[in-house]
Parts: sequence; C-alpha cells; structure tokens
Amino acid sequence: MARKMVYHVLLAFLLLTIISVVSVRYEPNWDSLDSRPLPAWYDAAKIGIFIHWGVFSVPSVESEWFWWDWEGAKTKTVVDFMKANYPPDFTYADFAKNFKAEFFNASEWADIFQASGAQYIVLTSKHHEGFTNWPSRYSFNWNSQDVGPARDLVGELAAAIRNNTDMFFGLYHSLFEWFHPLYLQDKANKWQTQKFVESKTMPELYEIVNRYKPDVIWSDGDWEAPDTYWNSTNFIAWLYNDSPVKDSVVTNDRWGQGIMCKHGGFLTCSDRYNPGKLQKRKWENAMTIDKQSWGYRRNTKLSEFLTTDELVGTLVETVSCGGNMLVNVGPTSDGKIIPVFEERLRELGQWLKVNSEAIYGSHPWTYQNDTVTPNVWYTKTKISSTTAVYAIVLDWPTNGKLQLGAPKMDSSGVVYLLGYRQQVKFSPGGQGGITIMLPEFADGTMPCKHAWVFRMLGVKN
Amino acid sequence: MARKMVYHVLLAFLLLTIISVVSVRYEPNWDSLDSRPLPAWYDAAKIGIFIHWGVFSVPSVESEWFWWDWEGAKTKTVVDFMKANYPPDFTYADFAKNFKAEFFNASEWADIFQASGAQYIVLTSKHHEGFTNWPSRYSFNWNSQDVGPARDLVGELAAAIRNNTDMFFGLYHSLFEWFHPLYLQDKANKWQTQKFVESKTMPELYEIVNRYKPDVIWSDGDWEAPDTYWNSTNFIAWLYNDSPVKDSVVTNDRWGQGIMCKHGGFLTCSDRYNPGKLQKRKWENAMTIDKQSWGYRRNTKLSEFLTTDELVGTLVETVSCGGNMLVNVGPTSDGKIIPVFEERLRELGQWLKVNSEAIYGSHPWTYQNDTVTPNVWYTKTKISSTTAVYAIVLDWPTNGKLQLGAPKMDSSGVVYLLGYRQQVKFSPGGQGGITIMLPEFADGTMPCKHAWVFRMLGVKN
Amino acid sequence: MARKMVYHVLLAFLLLTIISVVSVRYEPNWDSLDSRPLPAWYDAAKIGIFIHWGVFSVPSVESEWFWWDWEGAKTKTVVDFMKANYPPDFTYADFAKNFKAEFFNASEWADIFQASGAQYIVLTSKHHEGFTNWPSRYSFNWNSQDVGPARDLVGELAAAIRNNTDMFFGLYHSLFEWFHPLYLQDKANKWQTQKFVESKTMPELYEIVNRYKPDVIWSDGDWEAPDTYWNSTNFIAWLYNDSPVKDSVVTNDRWGQGIMCKHGGFLTCSDRYNPGKLQKRKWENAMTIDKQSWGYRRNTKLSEFLTTDELVGTLVETVSCGGNMLVNVGPTSDGKIIPVFEERLRELGQWLKVNSEAIYGSHPWTYQNDTVTPNVWYTKTKISSTTAVYAIVLDWPTNGKLQLGAPKMDSSGVVYLLGYRQQVKFSPGGQGGITIMLPEFADGTMPCKHAWVFRMLGVKN
Amino acid sequence: MARKMVYHVLLAFLLLTIISVVSVRYEPNWDSLDSRPLPAWYDAAKIGIFIHWGVFSVPSVESEWFWWDWEGAKTKTVVDFMKANYPPDFTYADFAKNFKAEFFNASEWADIFQASGAQYIVLTSKHHEGFTNWPSRYSFNWNSQDVGPARDLVGELAAAIRNNTDMFFGLYHSLFEWFHPLYLQDKANKWQTQKFVESKTMPELYEIVNRYKPDVIWSDGDWEAPDTYWNSTNFIAWLYNDSPVKDSVVTNDRWGQGIMCKHGGFLTCSDRYNPGKLQKRKWENAMTIDKQSWGYRRNTKLSEFLTTDELVGTLVETVSCGGNMLVNVGPTSDGKIIPVFEERLRELGQWLKVNSEAIYGSHPWTYQNDTVTPNVWYTKTKISSTTAVYAIVLDWPTNGKLQLGAPKMDSSGVVYLLGYRQQVKFSPGGQGGITIMLPEFADGTMPCKHAWVFRMLGVKN
Repeated sequence: MARKMVYHVLLAFLLLTIISVVSVRYEPNWDSLDSRPLPAWYDAAKIGIFIHWGVFSVPSVESEWFWWDWEGAKTKTVVDFMKANYPPDFTYADFAKNFKAEFFNASEWADIFQASGAQYIVLTSKHHEGFTNWPSRYSFNWNSQDVGPARDLVGELAAAIRNNTDMFFGLYHSLFEWFHPLYLQDKANKWQTQKFVESKTMPELYEIVNRYKPDVIWSDGDWEAPDTYWNSTNFIAWLYNDSPVKDSVVTNDRWGQGIMCKHGGFLTCSDRYNPGKLQKRKWENAMTIDKQSWGYRRNTKLSEFLTTDELVGTLVETVSCGGNMLVNVGPTSDGKIIPVFEERLRELGQWLKVNSEAIYGSHPWTYQNDTVTPNVWYTKTKISSTTAVYAIVLDWPTNGKLQLGAPKMDSSGVVYLLGYRQQVKFSPGGQGGITIMLPEFADGTMPCKHAWVFRMLGVKN
Repeated sequence: MARKMVYHVLLAFLLLTIISVVSVRYEPNWDSLDSRPLPAWYDAAKIGIFIHWGVFSVPSVESEWFWWDWEGAKTKTVVDFMKANYPPDFTYADFAKNFKAEFFNASEWADIFQASGAQYIVLTSKHHEGFTNWPSRYSFNWNSQDVGPARDLVGELAAAIRNNTDMFFGLYHSLFEWFHPLYLQDKANKWQTQKFVESKTMPELYEIVNRYKPDVIWSDGDWEAPDTYWNSTNFIAWLYNDSPVKDSVVTNDRWGQGIMCKHGGFLTCSDRYNPGKLQKRKWENAMTIDKQSWGYRRNTKLSEFLTTDELVGTLVETVSCGGNMLVNVGPTSDGKIIPVFEERLRELGQWLKVNSEAIYGSHPWTYQNDTVTPNVWYTKTKISSTTAVYAIVLDWPTNGKLQLGAPKMDSSGVVYLLGYRQQVKFSPGGQGGITIMLPEFADGTMPCKHAWVFRMLGVKN
Repeated sequence: MARKMVYHVLLAFLLLTIISVVSVRYEPNWDSLDSRPLPAWYDAAKIGIFIHWGVFSVPSVESEWFWWDWEGAKTKTVVDFMKANYPPDFTYADFAKNFKAEFFNASEWADIFQASGAQYIVLTSKHHEGFTNWPSRYSFNWNSQDVGPARDLVGELAAAIRNNTDMFFGLYHSLFEWFHPLYLQDKANKWQTQKFVESKTMPELYEIVNRYKPDVIWSDGDWEAPDTYWNSTNFIAWLYNDSPVKDSVVTNDRWGQGIMCKHGGFLTCSDRYNPGKLQKRKWENAMTIDKQSWGYRRNTKLSEFLTTDELVGTLVETVSCGGNMLVNVGPTSDGKIIPVFEERLRELGQWLKVNSEAIYGSHPWTYQNDTVTPNVWYTKTKISSTTAVYAIVLDWPTNGKLQLGAPKMDSSGVVYLLGYRQQVKFSPGGQGGITIMLPEFADGTMPCKHAWVFRMLGVKN
Repeated sequence: MARKMVYHVLLAFLLLTIISVVSVRYEPNWDSLDSRPLPAWYDAAKIGIFIHWGVFSVPSVESEWFWWDWEGAKTKTVVDFMKANYPPDFTYADFAKNFKAEFFNASEWADIFQASGAQYIVLTSKHHEGFTNWPSRYSFNWNSQDVGPARDLVGELAAAIRNNTDMFFGLYHSLFEWFHPLYLQDKANKWQTQKFVESKTMPELYEIVNRYKPDVIWSDGDWEAPDTYWNSTNFIAWLYNDSPVKDSVVTNDRWGQGIMCKHGGFLTCSDRYNPGKLQKRKWENAMTIDKQSWGYRRNTKLSEFLTTDELVGTLVETVSCGGNMLVNVGPTSDGKIIPVFEERLRELGQWLKVNSEAIYGSHPWTYQNDTVTPNVWYTKTKISSTTAVYAIVLDWPTNGKLQLGAPKMDSSGVVYLLGYRQQVKFSPGGQGGITIMLPEFADGTMPCKHAWVFRMLGVKN
C-alpha cells in the first residue's frame, strides 16, 4: 500500500516537474521562497526516520551535545565522566579514532527503516561538532573517510536507501559548529564577517546537495546568527531553481535567527513540536524514541525509551493535525541500530501495515480530535469521488461501545474497522455523533495493537 | 507474593538446618553425595538469572566462545572479524584492557533482576577463558581487579544482591580453561597429572566459596576429563559438609565426563534442556534470551532474541515438568544490561506478579500438559489442606471456550482466572474434563499478557 | 663569544632598521623582492637547528614522508609495516591521537639547541601532512591543540627560545599538502583555481607570521605549482613591507616551480645542498644528522647517524663557501630529542666554543679550500682594520707539519692555533704558501677535537 | 682474538666436563655448593651484557621499578606521571597490551652485543613484575606470548645468540614478585607457607633451565625471605648435578636473605659493586650505562649516560680486581637498543679489539693499581711459559713519560704498547719501578682511545 501511494506521488511529481520547467524562478527572499508549493511527496509521506550519528556516538553519554556539555557548558556529569574515564589531556577530536562503524551495513539499516513504514529518512550529514559523515572537501581529516570509519557513511546509506527501498533520502546539516575557530571569529565580529560561511558551511551544503541529491535538507544550528549571515536565501533559491533536486527537495525552517516557525519549507518550530491542533502550514514533529537524547546513549534507562503505544499515539496526533512525524534513532559508534529501537520501529511498521490508508496521503479532517471521547483523532482521504473519514482510537473502550461526537452520519453510512473483514455496526447519536458497537476479539485476534482505525464512509460534515 | 514464598522457604530452611546439624556427613562418592536432599529454596524458586560476563564481552561477537572459535576451532567468521578489525599480532589477552565496566552499577542490575521475578542469580565467576571476575589469588593479572575493570565484579554484585533484594546468589565456574598451559599439559598426560587442578581450578573454587558464600555453584567445563581428575567429589563433600554454605548451597551435575544428567545436585543435562515431560530428579533449563549466545553480541539481530511470549511459554513448560528456568543475559563490556534484555525481564516480572502462585513453590501435577488442548500446562500447590491445580494457557482460545481434558471436576469445584476478581464459569465435560467459559475483556483489560492461569479448586484427580 | 657576535649583529640591525624605515617598498615581483638586502643577522649566524615534528613522529618509521609513502607512492616497506602492525581500516589521521608530546619541555629543547652553538632554529609549523603544530584557525581538529598534544607547540617553543636564549626563531611551512582535497582540486584544475591557497595555506602563513613573529620563513612544498598559484610574491612583499617582522625576517627560495635556487632570500637549491665552492648569493645547507630522514625514525641504525666529525666537517665546508648550515633533528612523538642527537649537538657546541671566531660573522676568503693540502677550508674576519684568515684543518697531519698552498705570508705574519695560548711557528714556503710547525699534544690536551683552526694575521692575499 | 680465547676456554671446558662426569655430586647445602669450581669460561669472559626488558619498558619512566614506585612506594613523581597521562582506573597490567616489540630483531641485538666485545649476555626472563618474557606454563596471560608481543622473546634471543655469535647465554630471574598474591600470602604467613615458591617461582626456574639451557642463572629478588623459603639450595644442587647445563652453568649469590656476598657461584654483593681491590672469590660488577635505571627511560638526560671513557675505566678497574663487568642496557618497548647505548657498546668493542689480550682470560696481578701513578691498573696473562703483565693507563700522561712504581724490570725486559707495532722504550727506575717513554702520535693515529695498554715482558715480581 505504501508502494502504491508512492506511485501516486511519483505521478504528481511528474506533473509538478512539467509545470516547474515552464514556471517561475524563486528570488532569494522569503516572500518568494515561501511561495513555492511544497513537493507533494512530503505531505503524503507522514513518517520519516531521523538518524543522529557522529563522533558523539563514541562517548555515547548524555547526548549528541556531549562536546558542548563537556567543554562549553561544563556540565558536571559530563566533566566528571571525562575525569573518571580518560586522561586529563584527552580531547574531543581524540574520540574520532574510535568511531569505527565496523558493523555498519547500510542495507540492514534500510531494511529496518523500510519495515517501520517510514517514507523518508534524514541522516545527520554533519552535527554541531563539525565532523562530516562524508568525505567533505572542506573538512580535511575531520570527516568519516579520513579518520575513524574510513568510509563515506552518507554515500553508503544513500545508495542503500535508493537501491533497496522506495523511501526518500534526506540530510540533516548543522549551519554552525560550536567550536570552529572561523565561526567563533565571525561571531566575535558580530556577524560582520562570513569567513566560516564562505569557506566551510555553505561549500559543504552545496557539496552534499550536488553529491548526494537529498530530497530533504534538514537545516539546524542557525539560531545564533541572522539568515543574512548564513546566506540562507541564496542557498535556498539555488536549491529551488537550479540544484539537481530542485523539483523534489523539501527543506525546513531553521535558516537563521527568527526564521524558524515563520519561513522556509515545512515548519519545525521546536524540537518535539506537537501543537495538538491544526496548523496553517505543513509542519513536522521531529522527536526521539530515547526521550532525552538524539544521539545514542549507552546508559539510557529502559523507562526513557518511548513505548510503541506512545509512538503510535504521537504519530496519530501529529498526522491528524497536519504534521509529519520524524522519529529519531541514534546508532552506535560501531554502526548498529540497537534492538530496542529496531523493535519499536518494526512494531510501528506492523501497525502501519494494517492502517496505512488512514495515514499515508491522508489529510486533516474538519475535526482533529473527537468532541466527546478523548484520544480519538481524525484523518480523511479522498479516493476518486469518495471521501473517507478515519477515527483513530488510542484506547479501546472497555464497555463495548465507542461514542464519537464529531462525525455526522445517518444510517446510509458505513463503518469499517481496518484489518477486520466485516462492517461494524453503529447507530447515529442524538446530538449528531454516532455510537459504534465494537466487535469482540479473543486475545491475539485483534487486527492490530496500540490503536485502531474506523473508516467511515458517508460522513456528512 | 514472591516475598511471602521466600519466608516459607526460609522456615523450611531453618528446619533443614536443624536437621543437618545432627545429621550425617557425606562421603566423597556419588552415592553419598546424591543422597543429600536438595535445599528446599531451590525447587521453590523456579526462576533464576544467568549472567555471562567476561573478556569475551569486549569483542562481543559470535559468542562467549569467541577465543575458542578464533584460535581453537578457527571459525571463519571469527577469524575474518579479527583480520578485518585488529592488527595481526593482536592477542586475546590484549582485549582485557578494554573490559572497562565503567557503567557497571550492581544495584541497577539487582533492581532489574529482582523486577524479573527471578529468585536467584548465577554469575560467571570465571568462564572457559580463565579470566576471573574477582581478584583471584591464583590468576595473577588475569582477573578483573588487576586488568581492565580494576574492580571485584563478583564482590560488588554479591553485595548488591544481598543488600537490595531477597534473591539467592550463585556463581558459575568453569572447571577447564581452553588454553591454560597446565590444563593442556594434564590433558597431554591423559589426566594422569593434576597440576592444573591443584594449582588453579580447585583453589579458585574453594576461594569463591569461602569468599562469596554462593548459594549455587554452577559447574561447567567438565566434559573432557573424568571427575576423578577434577577431584569433584572431594570438593562437593567439603561443600556439603564443611563449607560456609553447607546448608543452603545447591550445585548442578557438570562435574566430570559422564556425570552430567546422572549425579550431583540438580540436573542440567544439556544447554537449553527442556524435556517436555516430568523428570525424576530436580532439573534446570538453562537458556538464553539471545537464542544464539550466552555472552553479549553487538550484532545480534532482533529476530534472534526470544520474545516475551516465548520466554513465558518456556517458563511455564519448564515449571510444569518440574524444572527451574535459568534465563541468561549477557552484559556489555561497559557494564550495562541492554534495554531489550531489560524489557524482556521486566515483562516476565509483570506476568509473574499476576501469576506467582502458580509458579513459585508449585509442584508438577498428575498431568503436565493437557490431553485435549495443546499449549496448556499444569502445576499445583497445596496451601494448608487445599490443593490448587493451575492450568496455564499459552493461547487464549478464540471461540470463548477452553476445553480441558485432564482435570476431573464436578460442579462443586471452583475456577478462577488469576488477576480476575470473579469466578469463572465452567462445565464438567462428558469424558471427565471440563469446559471453561472465558470471560470477555476489552483490549488492555486482560489481567496479563502472554499466558493466563486458571486456578481450579476441587479437582478430583 | 657567540653572544658578542650577536651584539654586533644587533648593531648592524639597528642601522638597517633605520635605513629600512626611510627606504623603498618592495613590489610583488622577483626583481624587486630579490633586491632586498638579507638582514645581516642571518649571514652572521652560520648555524641553525631544523626540527621536523608532526603526526609522522607517531609511526616514526621510514621518514616524515610516511603518509605519502604509504598511501601515495605505496612504498612496499611502509605498506608492509602498516599491514603488520595496524588494523586494515587504520587511517593516517588515526595516528594523531597518539601524538602526545607528554615529555615536551620547550626549555629543555632551547637549552640543547643553545648548547649546540646554533644561532637560530626552524621548526616545522606544518609539514606536507597539513597538521599544524599551532592552533590554526584554518585547520580545525587537525592541529596540535585540538587533537593529540592538546598544546600550542609552536607557541611554547617560540616563548622558550626567546625567553631562555639569544637565538632567532624561525618556522618551516609547507605550501602544499599531499592529500588536501582542495589542493587536489586546484591541481586537477591545472592551477586555474586557488581554493586551497585562499582558504588554507595563505591564511595560515599570515597567521603564523602575525602570531609568532618568526625571523625565518622556511617555505617548502612549492614545486608542483607556479609561484603565481601560490601568491608567493604578494605574501613576500607583505612580509618585507608590512609584516611585524619586516626588518628581521629572512626567507628562502622555495616559492613555486622554477623559483628555487633563483629567487627569494637565501638559496637552498636542494636538500643537503653543499656545492663545495663559493656561491654568488647567500645559501643554506639544510641537512640531517639521521642521514636518511628529517623526521624521527625509531629504527634508524647507528651507522645512519652522522658522526660529530662529519658534522663539523660539513659545517666548515659550508661556511667556507658562504653558506649557513641548518642541522636537522627529529623529536619523538612524546617530545624528546633523543640522546644521540643531543650528544652530536653538544659536541658541535664544544667545538664552536673554541673556534667561534672563525665561524660566526666570518666571510669567505679568496680561497675556499687549500691548493695543496686537502680538507683544509678557509674563512676570514675583519676586526677593526685587521683581517684574520682562518685555515680550518679537518685532518691533523701525522708528520708534524701543515703545508698550506693558498696564503701568502712573510715572516712578519703571525699564526695562532685557536684554543692554544702560544703562537705557532711557521715558515713561508717557496711557491708562496706557508708551512706550519704543529705543536705537540698529549692525548686529551688538544684544544678541541674534530677540526683545528689556525688564525693567520698578515696574510698578503 | 676473542674467538681464540673462546677456543681455549672450550678446551678447558671439555676437560672439566670429563672430570665432572666422574666427579662428586653436590649436596643441597652451601658448604657443598660453594665447593664447586666455577666453570672456567666465566672468569675468562670478563664482560657481559645485561638486558632489562619487560612491561616496565612501556611506561619507560623512572626505572624498571615503576610498578612498585607507583603502587607500592607511591613515589610522587610516578604517581603524578600516571595522573597526568592515564585514566584513573588504569592498571599496571593494562600496559602489557602496548608492549609490542614490533622492531625486535634478535639478530640485530646479537650483532650489537657481539660488537661490544662482551662474551655473554644476561636477559631478564622475568623481573619483579612477574611478567615472563617466555611462554611460561605458570604465568598464563601474563607472559610475552599471550599478551603484548605475542612472541617468545627469550627463545628468539637465545637462538640468535647461539646461531650468530660465540657468546654465552644467560638469564636473569627474580625470585619474588612484588604484587603476586601467593607471594604476599606466604609473606603474611612469615614464610611458613611456600605456595608461591611451589606453584610459581620454582617451576618457572626449572622451566627456563630445561627449555633455554642458560649458561648463567642470575638470581635476584631474594632478600625478603630466607633461602630455605626459596628452596634455593635444592634448585642449585639440581642445577649443578642434573640439569642440562650442569657443566657450563654459573650462578650468582642472590639466593636468600643473608646469602648475597657469601654463598653461591660468583658474588655480586650489591648493584654496581666495584670494590677497587682484589677479592678472594670471583665477583661481578653489574652496572648500567644509564646511571639511574636498568630499564629504558624515555626521559633519561644525556648527562645520565656513562661516557665510553667511564665505561672503559670501569671495565679496567673491575678486571684488575678480579671481577667481571656486566653492562646493562634497557631496550625500548618496541624492541630497539637506542643509538646512544649502541654507540657506547660499539666503542667499547673497538677498544677491546685492540686490547683484548689484557682483558680476556687475564688474571689479577700482584698489584691491582700502580703505586705512584694514579689510574693505572694491572692484569696479567700467562701464555705458555711467558707471563705478560699489562699496565692499563686511563690518562695518557701529558709530559711524554709514564712512571710506574709497581713492576720491577731490568733492561732485559720488553715493553709494548698494544696496537702499536714497535717496542716502547723504558728505563728501570731507582726505587724498582720503571719509566716508559711514550711514543708520539698525531691526532687520530693513536692505536685507540679511552685507555692504553702496555704489555711488559720480563717483569720480575
């Protein structure tokens, strides 16, 4: 089903491509850039996998902000960890040698991500530490080919995703680098100089676009300086007008101080953004299975991982309100997705196999959540002339009945439970809602776990 | 409830202690040693945690037999792994430096093990590699205090288990060491010399008993040589007669070629021993959550971990047939129980919280599994004068009825579902069995997952 | 005496400074740059110490070209060394972590260099590997502050040399970097682009001049590209006109393809350049005590080190022909000058203590070497109105007489042996030379070893 | 010439062997053991090389007592060194992995030792740290085959010495081990138990004798316990009576508290023992080129190495007084003899090439040093019926004459300077001595440096 959706999207694509060939060029200003329609695949995709991998995966303690916490903020736990386990003169760059990625098998990752039901992935090409996961021309001996893995991690994953799956491939890129001396110099110059931008961050951005043709540029690390410092609008104009991915690429909103949640492609607004109500523009909920870190932590407690229940719940709420969910996992320095992450992702995928039609390609409905029963969220799709409204129920009622306040239906309507072969009985309610009689299941025979989807045909509102 | 069980056991203990004070001394021969009654706590306990930790946790590839596979059997995958990732002259002992255990917190482990519902643990004090996890006097610079962790791992865990939990504490000990030169010399001498036994393996066994007072000695690595070579019966006689744990200690059956499954305390017979029918003597099913390895593997696939369903199923089958289940987890070289292991253990613990009375202190019933419905296993307990028979159902029937062929009950009997407040209806069957009408549950309201237990009072057979 | 010489030089300096203040500015072309008089201290100094230190000091095998030999030329010995001692995926940058410099004490080095009689030092600020021995703003995480030593090696040595000695401080700098991707890109573009020059090599050159104010810029790594690619003349013009060291700085001739031995400050022409006859322009013999390597080699054979005899001989020949000798030592990765180097340097210094007046501030004489006796070299000095000619004898004649063909003297002349209190007898020879009657010495009472200097006053030619 | 001497010795050997075959057996008591004549080769040999190599060569700081200084005595410099350069939990055994010996080439060592003129070598088979440089059966994973070098260092050197040279091969062995738990236990038991002796130190001693057939057993580490604890006399009795080296082997005097300087083979009395006068029994001056350490130190100052002058002087004094000199060098952890050591040894060898007849096979003369001129030492040899007396002059007199008070000669006597082809003139002195007229030499033409030997034939006393 996901595959079918992709074909639809590709068709839409083709159309857009034809249109775009004859169409306008974007100017390097936000009015113009914001006017570009978001490529259709992105809204249809709903779910992506976020991957935070880098030198921080070697200490793999605290978070991917390890370096900053240690030598910037001097967070006590991290300073103490270093004192307890390393010689006094140890430097952050000394960690790079032990980033070995010896078990990294991009096809295995692709298989896991595909199995999750995600439609795109976003890999950190470079995080705030500045280490590039590809052999950047602008990061000599501070990249994954020259030190540590001795491999082009971005390239290997891009190839595997494209060869083995029908997912879209995206790249995260941090504009700033905490400790890059040219960045610090520009900062000391109050952004009146752009040495860092000109010799490091922009050349690298162009390089990854040209080399890896990512469908997503997930920008970050922008907040200390204005977009004019970063040359953001020039880059995005090039990305939209002339880059090799000009038709398919989407980008986010982290392009300079004050830009986030206002301009760009889709809006991210904050980490783990999940507003709970319909948004005017397309947005994304970038969140983590390890509730406290994007990078792998060797000492995450079991209670700090989201359960699959929570993960499905977050997806449902996000999609109902018009967002995409970007689920983060942090691989280990030896290149594995740990089992607990894999388990969550595969269970999410099993849920999606049953319930894909309510998610992929869906749209927010008139109501996002139900007016009488909590934890019920809505989506809708239109197939040919038929509109289906989906009620996604996070808690299966214990009394055998599901009362819904939002949908107006008369008895000509039809209600299905996805994954269940027969129609489900319902009765129109007094105040315009309906009451669904729940079918009964022996343990293990319900069509899925975690959440259940009722497809309603004939909804009047 | 587990706690209550423990008190009963302790009472039994006291009794035994008194008896044993006045009782016979065991001779160093199997007839005499086999005549010793197994301390009662062991049969009552039913579930233990097995922990394989050592230098093999550093490469953490293939299995805890890594050294043997590499330099003994020269298994291709392991030889290739070494070639791909280490310099040609790298030795196994070179790994020890990187056994850091920097995150090892014995209280955390104790908490996880306790939460699993296990009643005892068995830690590898020394595996076939010969590395001792305590500061052995007989293993200079090849122990966890002198190289690597720089800590007494056995001592720390013993203290935490005893201070923080009511579990029993046991130690695994390998008699042989693959590559110990004195062992190899004795072997070349066809076991006519005992240099290894006298200067290494026996002194160490006595040392751990005297120092850590383990409640279990889980012997292994015995199979190449006769028990007379190992001096096994002398040691066990001392263990039963004069050791500081003479009253509480249990031991297994791996004490020399041809001894396993015949002599000793409880029988293990083989790894993952699970005979599926009642055994004459007390036995133990030592098995692993990672289906292919006892030591931690960094590259275990998700599909290679037992699910909680499988784990509960194995427990039920094992206990019904009179065995204990010893569930193995392999910690990482930095000292963590990885989340997927923790999750399995905690889910097992949740099941046991509901169903403990059918497990702890239970006994095999007349039938082990049902005569008509597959995957139903029985246990029984006697509380005061009342005997309860428990039918443990691994698959919840989809037709609302559970037909049991084994128990004979008339209508004076009573049936309960553990964790469910009301009695459950049943009807005696034509051929002597009964049919239980299953209560109906909305999702999430069943008393537990994985398996369900019916307590039957008034069973006539 | 060296100290006195330095004062003379400083006076000359002052004068030059005054002149230069009112004088012309140099244009960025070779005619103009070549017209600049070499600051006088340099010719007077005669002896410098060259120091090759970098990441290559970690493997410390083969030479400082280790990386190139391994991955560029794929020299068998180096490739085999890596195979024998490192894992297959090991990278050159992985070595940096083990560049610890834990014993590096700049004051100790300054003491050894001073004791050698050298008047200046030249340290590799950056060799062809691109690793900077100072915290370069343009070499993030590939410099001695960010990885490995965690120290500013250049800064520490500069401070020690200036605080503890009266030596001049110079820096070696490689224009090219074997494997820098921007350099390789410019090269692929046939030097039509200058990305590497603009973002890496030139900014770094300016940075070290401004930060460390070196008295020597010893350029290297120029030969693959024309000087126009490197922007050499612009840099040198700035160095001569506006840099903080414009009055004292000297530079060499390695500034682009075809430039060496033609343009620049002093000429180096080739490694170990030692032409054996007088040169028109000031030149320098950069040579090594380890005859085969500039960087430290752990496996140098004793026979591969120059003896002190050879070292003194080379100095004498070099100075007689108008050159300076730049003697190279390679420190270890832990920051020590190994004893055999220290011994050579200190023995050279002992020779110079006795014979300084024939070396420091001296000038070539009419003849460089003698016309009849081999291995006799000449220098001269002018003190007030007196000219002294020095015959430096590498082999003490075994027949009690030294016959010199070059100097013309009558009996009004005077001959001294440096370090010997009395005049030495001589007789004018038939064909215009002289014969010196050698004084006799018991073992250990000669004024020095290795070479002996006769000061001749009243030489007519 | 050394070779010729060796043949003489071998003849003597053969004779001794024949005698010993029919001769008495030694009893395990000092009277009996002390009665054994020292095999003749040892006294004739005069010079040996001592080699201290082990895990202490990895930190290579302070001395071979590094471990003790760090964790026993807690010497501040060593404790500080560890704090500054290693993580807090680092253990001594963690160093072993970095003992790589990657450049160790036993033939190269043999060549250097041979070139020094030494006639035997003594290698630390095991120092106080307990690490064995051979694959001991009693030191599992704490030996050079199992961890670190992965090679049999003793075996490789033994083979090279025997295949490539005519030197004798000896082994140092430490009886005690600072931190061995069984040793500490025996010590705590006031030497009433011998667990350590029985399971570790004695089995290893027998093992190295049987496996490597050393010509010297250089015992050490004896001083804390009586010889009865060590079983010393039993071992030596076996060594003399039944070992495979019973005819050639010599041993020293470090066999138990109070034994040193009293019993055993040759006497060592103290480190760097050099009494300056004739001794009754054969003795040995074990001394170091690095004046402060036997193990290699990375930070030895040049001034801390003996000069060749001092080394030759020590040899001469030692031999004159009847001793042997055992010169120590400490190889690096990568297996090299550093150049400064090699230089000293080769210069010693050059001196010995000229002056061998006064050293090898020589005997103390009536006088050890001269009665009127200081720093003149005597030896003598008897070739056929001729006795030659050798005056070894450490300072070449500056007045052309050497006055000797000890020898009585009339004009029938003859005096030679070794390495000089002609006879040397002398005149008998008034009070019975002689005055030698020194020949004159141009620089570089003396037969040798450091010391000069006059052979006197016809000495009357």
